[in-house]
Amino acid sequence: MKLMDWLNQIKWDADGLVPVIAQERDSGDVVMFAWMNRAALARTVEVGEAVYWSRSRARLWHKGEESGHTQTVHEMRLDCDNDVVLLRITQNGHQPGIACHTGRHSCFYQRLEGSAWVTADAVLKDPDQIYK
Amino acid sequence: MKLMDWLNQIKWDADGLVPVIAQERDSGDVVMFAWMNRAALARTVEVGEAVYWSRSRARLWHKGEESGHTQTVHEMRLDCDNDVVLLRITQNGHQPGIACHTGRHSCFYQRLEGSAWVTADAVLKDPDQIYK
Repeated sequence: MKLMDWLNQIKWDADGLVPVIAQERDSGDVVMFAWMNRAALARTVEVGEAVYWSRSRARLWHKGEESGHTQTVHEMRLDCDNDVVLLRITQNGHQPGIACHTGRHSCFYQRLEGSAWVTADAVLKDPDQIYK
Repeated sequence: MKLMDWLNQIKWDADGLVPVIAQERDSGDVVMFAWMNRAALARTVEVGEAVYWSRSRARLWHKGEESGHTQTVHEMRLDCDNDVVLLRITQNGHQPGIACHTGRHSCFYQRLEGSAWVTADAVLKDPDQIYK
């Protein structure tokens, strides 16, 4: 088997991207959703930390490069259609982990209550202190 | 606040879709990833079960409509960018839950080992017995 076969098996979308879910290994919490291209996924495996493709900045984004909140990747899973990746990670740099740029544990902090999205999780650290 | 404001707050992509992660409430397992459009999300809230938008069939897809493996939705979360939805669900119809069309618990049954995707989870029920 060629070394890059595992990358070729992924069904990249029209933009050459694959959706990626980051789940904390120890808590089971889903903390983030982002995208990777081929280079990002290869780099993630190479360094053992999550490296995403930033669609807004159109460049590789080593998660935590500014905040220090890196994600150690323990396990990588692929779904039945070969078009979604699930990472089992440890969220580094703060205890409990801060994955969200708002300073919260998880990006999924808004909960639907009746017909309104309500902020359900607290800010653990002021973003101004994270991104100096 | 208007009744549909919570739907308007979502940043739908160019195709009018939003990515959706389904996580089992009790186990914490991420079992599925799919897409919803506005009608699917509204219907999900209305019936209390996951209704996705099938991109391949281009129609609403009430998960479990053929298999009986419906998903009761206990909680719905939205991420910091308002463009990804996380469902906390119970996977019905089998114990343990079968979310995958291959008859497995989770769609994320392929694990990267070295440079190969390896099937890491067992089939719980023969798909021929699920989709008669």
